[in-house]
Amino acid sequence: MIRREDALAQDAADPLAPLRERFTLPQGVIYLDGNSLGALPKATALRLEQLVGTEWGEDLIRSWTKHGWIDLPLRVGDKIARLVGAAPGSVAVADSTTVNLFKLMAAALRLRPGRRVILSEDGNFPTDLYVAQGLVELLGNRHELRLAEAADIAGAIDEDVVLVSLTEVNYRSGRLHDMAGLTRRAHEAGALILWDLAHSAGALPVDLAGADADFAVGCGYKYLNGGPGAPAFLYVAPRLQGAFRSPLTGWLGHAAPFAFETGYRPAPGIARAIVGTPSILSLAALEIGVDLALAADIAAVRAKSLALSRLFIDCVVQDCAGLGLTLAAPERDDERGSQVSYRHPEGYAVMQALIARGVIGDFRAPDILRFGFAPLYLRYADIFDAVHILREVLATKAWDRAEYKRRAAVT
Amino acid sequence: MIRREDALAQDAADPLAPLRERFTLPQGVIYLDGNSLGALPKATALRLEQLVGTEWGEDLIRSWTKHGWIDLPLRVGDKIARLVGAAPGSVAVADSTTVNLFKLMAAALRLRPGRRVILSEDGNFPTDLYVAQGLVELLGNRHELRLAEAADIAGAIDEDVVLVSLTEVNYRSGRLHDMAGLTRRAHEAGALILWDLAHSAGALPVDLAGADADFAVGCGYKYLNGGPGAPAFLYVAPRLQGAFRSPLTGWLGHAAPFAFETGYRPAPGIARAIVGTPSILSLAALEIGVDLALAADIAAVRAKSLALSRLFIDCVVQDCAGLGLTLAAPERDDERGSQVSYRHPEGYAVMQALIARGVIGDFRAPDILRFGFAPLYLRYADIFDAVHILREVLATKAWDRAEYKRRAAVT
Repeated sequence: MIRREDALAQDAADPLAPLRERFTLPQGVIYLDGNSLGALPKATALRLEQLVGTEWGEDLIRSWTKHGWIDLPLRVGDKIARLVGAAPGSVAVADSTTVNLFKLMAAALRLRPGRRVILSEDGNFPTDLYVAQGLVELLGNRHELRLAEAADIAGAIDEDVVLVSLTEVNYRSGRLHDMAGLTRRAHEAGALILWDLAHSAGALPVDLAGADADFAVGCGYKYLNGGPGAPAFLYVAPRLQGAFRSPLTGWLGHAAPFAFETGYRPAPGIARAIVGTPSILSLAALEIGVDLALAADIAAVRAKSLALSRLFIDCVVQDCAGLGLTLAAPERDDERGSQVSYRHPEGYAVMQALIARGVIGDFRAPDILRFGFAPLYLRYADIFDAVHILREVLATKAWDRAEYKRRAAVT
Repeated sequence: MIRREDALAQDAADPLAPLRERFTLPQGVIYLDGNSLGALPKATALRLEQLVGTEWGEDLIRSWTKHGWIDLPLRVGDKIARLVGAAPGSVAVADSTTVNLFKLMAAALRLRPGRRVILSEDGNFPTDLYVAQGLVELLGNRHELRLAEAADIAGAIDEDVVLVSLTEVNYRSGRLHDMAGLTRRAHEAGALILWDLAHSAGALPVDLAGADADFAVGCGYKYLNGGPGAPAFLYVAPRLQGAFRSPLTGWLGHAAPFAFETGYRPAPGIARAIVGTPSILSLAALEIGVDLALAADIAAVRAKSLALSRLFIDCVVQDCAGLGLTLAAPERDDERGSQVSYRHPEGYAVMQALIARGVIGDFRAPDILRFGFAPLYLRYADIFDAVHILREVLATKAWDRAEYKRRAAVT
């Protein structure tokens, strides 16, 4: 029998508990959607005020050097590198996750010219698949995107595969791939591997260098709390940087951007992955979020993430039995990211009813209720309370109202 | 003889003069670099405070619908459309100018599969050339980037040309191309044309629909005052939108992004040019700048821009004769954008000396002093004063100091 007092005791013993005070969180809301849009760090508003009022407003164009705007993509990249086990100089902040996927996939195909298959997971986040489809079409359909079920990926890596493109944590199920094992398997077959860390960076320990990964991308607005649509990042292993050629050859990725030469020459190192002028407002906000993520010990983050998830699952077993939920996430902790998902035939309406009661998770078609656990600002008591409300919604069929079933364009 | 009183009289009669109050401008600075980074609209700080504090902080993920974040790329796109003579639904805000160039160039090559030459201007902004070079290389060098001098472009458009890619106003010289005439010429030869409006949008009347242009891109952080690294925009003529295929097939450009389908299907219309999740902070700031640009009559903006430029040129003739400056911009008003450039053998040091005295323009290699005139916030008296300081710097050789000659990485 889990009681609310137990959750409160966990909060009292939580070494990460003080970090919650560094976020703005609305009253009356239990926010289980930090894996879609992370919460607002209190320091962000102040940083933006300074950036806009002083740096842009007063120092204008001079801020590119005076306030180091020009260094932001690599400076914030180096900070993110510490979160994902990457060496300094191997991560840049740039563009969106999708655009970065395109750069890396196109570069991978050029590094293994004889091979033709991009292998990904059936059920990978759509943009990862769409980018591969668009690239294959652009290059004249001489390559092919092949999909395999999560459990069959390792077996599907053969001599035709140029690139294995996987999201470490599945956006729907929360299933966590074995990065080290699959990277080893890809390399044994002579393939390259690209890891999408959208649901990993800031939520669990990632060791890109230790796994010997080739490429990675990740998202700034989820567990890094960089704000809506924060710029993304990308990683190129140092051993590949010399041969890496981005298909997006922009002036800020040039070896000498301010020489305004007629011919493109790639900048040394990861800087060649930068394309156009970065959005400084968004980059500055991202830096605050990354700094906050760096303030926490990532092992403690992972431990709390799993404890929150375990508490959620246990509370659902205790309180929601027979109410129509089916666990859609791996049972084992070591196979799960920082979220838990359930299927429910009326999943959309159930989530709307929850949101109306202040429990914010999200719905993923066709029938997935997704609950994300951001350890920097969630409390164990929040989990207990959320499941209590979930039980109430299900037991009373509170979801069975027309207003909850009417789907909005964005959910 | 031009006197300061004359400039003050022009200010007193200026219909756009009241708009200056809507910008934050530093004391003691004459800002002639709005064509590199536009000034800060006063409303921007307030908008960001609301966006961050309320929309992100309080409403979190719900803001995508509740506060219309999801609509921003097309909503701001439609506003920009009014500034560049485009129909509603033909402009989207997305990514950077460079990334948008890539989308449009790649799409153009697919629309004219038999042809192999991308024609551009020798001296076009480097990123426009680099993108073409990178694309040609990506596609296996079956195409070719051909460059012609500005005056020779029309004659160089032949049956091999798939795409003419031009910046309407040259970033160094300020030279203005004849958009309608060159577009007609391109179409006569069966080619497509892409206009880069980086130095046009918000500075002079643009009529994309009237000229029957095929594609365009533009910049948010120059005359649109969207802030450092503001997102860019792109235009696809309505008649081409059905056939237009972006090579960057991201989830937000999908026909049903939230259905999370496995296969990419392009969204109808210009929405298919959207790729990943947009940076909302930067987009919201851009919207404020665009709203301000829409508050001014663009014909009045052009008239003032030319009058400011003319005053600058006339003052230089009067005050700086024999001091080493050579006009590097067209003499005729109708051949010039909203800037004036001069060559000076010590251009870099001269600009540093000017900046140290509060006159901010910029330097473009190898020897160009560039002065941009943003009519929404510049005064005629500023121009008079700026040339007075320029004269002083040149006449006293104030630029002849080691600290001014030491080049920074970014200028």
